[in-house]
Amino acid sequence: MRIVFALGDSALFPHGETLAGDHQARGIRDAAAALAPVCAAGHQVVITHGNGPQVGLLALQAAATPDIPYPLDVPDAESAGMIGYLIERQLMNVLPGGALVAALLTQVRVDRHDPAFRKPGKPIGAIYAESEARALAAERGWRVAANADGWQRVVASPAPLEILEARVIEMLIEKNVIVICTGGGGIPVIELEDGSLTGIEAVIDKDGASALLARQLRADWLVMLTDVDALYLDWGTEMARAVRHVTTRALATREFAPGSMGPKVRAACGFVNKTGKRAGIGALRDASAIIEGAAGTIISVDPVQPDDPGWQHGRPTTHLQPRR
Amino acid sequence: MRIVFALGDSALFPHGETLAGDHQARGIRDAAAALAPVCAAGHQVVITHGNGPQVGLLALQAAATPDIPYPLDVPDAESAGMIGYLIERQLMNVLPGGALVAALLTQVRVDRHDPAFRKPGKPIGAIYAESEARALAAERGWRVAANADGWQRVVASPAPLEILEARVIEMLIEKNVIVICTGGGGIPVIELEDGSLTGIEAVIDKDGASALLARQLRADWLVMLTDVDALYLDWGTEMARAVRHVTTRALATREFAPGSMGPKVRAACGFVNKTGKRAGIGALRDASAIIEGAAGTIISVDPVQPDDPGWQHGRPTTHLQPRR
Repeated sequence: MRIVFALGDSALFPHGETLAGDHQARGIRDAAAALAPVCAAGHQVVITHGNGPQVGLLALQAAATPDIPYPLDVPDAESAGMIGYLIERQLMNVLPGGALVAALLTQVRVDRHDPAFRKPGKPIGAIYAESEARALAAERGWRVAANADGWQRVVASPAPLEILEARVIEMLIEKNVIVICTGGGGIPVIELEDGSLTGIEAVIDKDGASALLARQLRADWLVMLTDVDALYLDWGTEMARAVRHVTTRALATREFAPGSMGPKVRAACGFVNKTGKRAGIGALRDASAIIEGAAGTIISVDPVQPDDPGWQHGRPTTHLQPRR
Repeated sequence: MRIVFALGDSALFPHGETLAGDHQARGIRDAAAALAPVCAAGHQVVITHGNGPQVGLLALQAAATPDIPYPLDVPDAESAGMIGYLIERQLMNVLPGGALVAALLTQVRVDRHDPAFRKPGKPIGAIYAESEARALAAERGWRVAANADGWQRVVASPAPLEILEARVIEMLIEKNVIVICTGGGGIPVIELEDGSLTGIEAVIDKDGASALLARQLRADWLVMLTDVDALYLDWGTEMARAVRHVTTRALATREFAPGSMGPKVRAACGFVNKTGKRAGIGALRDASAIIEGAAGTIISVDPVQPDDPGWQHGRPTTHLQPRR
């Protein structure tokens, strides 16, 4: 089978740890161990990943050299280089000798007229006092906005339209190379009027870009891995119950947390509705079990049994209890 | 033909410019334009590049967050991500539609017992006063040394033994994908006693790594591009003359500047002697002309004519005049 695994920040990056290199290496080692059985089983595997904490650190560090401005596509590429390399190395350590792995930089085309550019809403980088934020906005042409933590730069999160390296990625997985790509949602580029590509100050939703990639690759599965074992209804209440199987039609009647399960559900439904294939949401450690239908939440167009209403729930068991 | 082009920092990065993103983009745009005719002519092309200025900037910026230490393999990977992406994008802009380009992270295996680790000699990062350098050395386990500019951290530059992604790179060039890889000499990794790979604090000579890659790929050419149009004898004197063709045997009798032409000559001779193929050294803008034998310095095992002594010199003409 051809599978796109999207690793969330919380799958790669243990909570409460600093970003120190050895902490990151440990989180990534665990991720590689969880994915190894799927890779070794002969599936065609593509791995995407988040870059939130890492790109935030780069933005903080870049503030130390304000006279050398890098546009936002650059730290996106830098963080993809770092995380891609670390995942690749750890995978090579857990896969049988001779297994081939490649980490590719990935450009994602977005529309320069995307309405998101008129209403940038994605906070990035350091947290400022209001006066400082406004001064930076005036000086650097940033948009800034207040959130629960303070004032932050906000950038657009436009819809991904095309993964420019999809053909190369497909060539590699057809030769059984495990491919790591589309880090942090990929590097956003726009097409100018003369047809040339240029980088743009934006961040692309990682789950949305992963769903687009899965579609371009005609993947059988899009599996989004995080630190929670399934999609939950009534999350955070005593009624909380894990969803085992659900149709996209049933999901469309519910809302999920914007910064967390919301983008995953949207990406999953988009992929499933457009392709008729399946999507999974679950815990990193369950990567193998999810594609066997034995763990996580499986999202499909049709109900598992003809007479089910589109939902199948599990009960919160020890195994199903979210880790946070 | 199968060609490895190694782009020096001075080819990619115009002197006197800051590292600002748009300056770098301009240098890389010019590099892409120079390489486009070779790529479009149907050759199998691999492009490697330096990362000196970029990784230096990352080291400076990382000093802003000393509580989050990254080992040196991480900024290597970050800079390869950034530069690889920029070269890829600019190449896509100048190549015919449908041309495929890929930028790969590249790990280079070195020997953890390499004698270079006992005598680290490659200066990197910020310049300090002696007392500060010594304090950092004590605190972080660095080696530091004085040079013309002041005190700097010094790291090992071990010999590259194997490009771990060579098979993947070969798969891609066989399908006519232009591959950008081995940025900054590649990311140094060592094999531990249990056979697993881990990153190591070192930098690998870019020309040496490019020569190894060319050898692993059985390339027809290794071409090192810089901002000087050829290798010169008696450089900097009135006697200066460009070398047009030279045998490795003749080159072995001369010495060249350690930080500049020295590593290029050593890499070229190593590749040529081990493979019997040719190496070129010259200006970025002459990339096409070099592989036609019409510009640059061509290095081979055998003399061009049976009765020549191993050297053929050009006279300094306008074209042959170095730019600096």
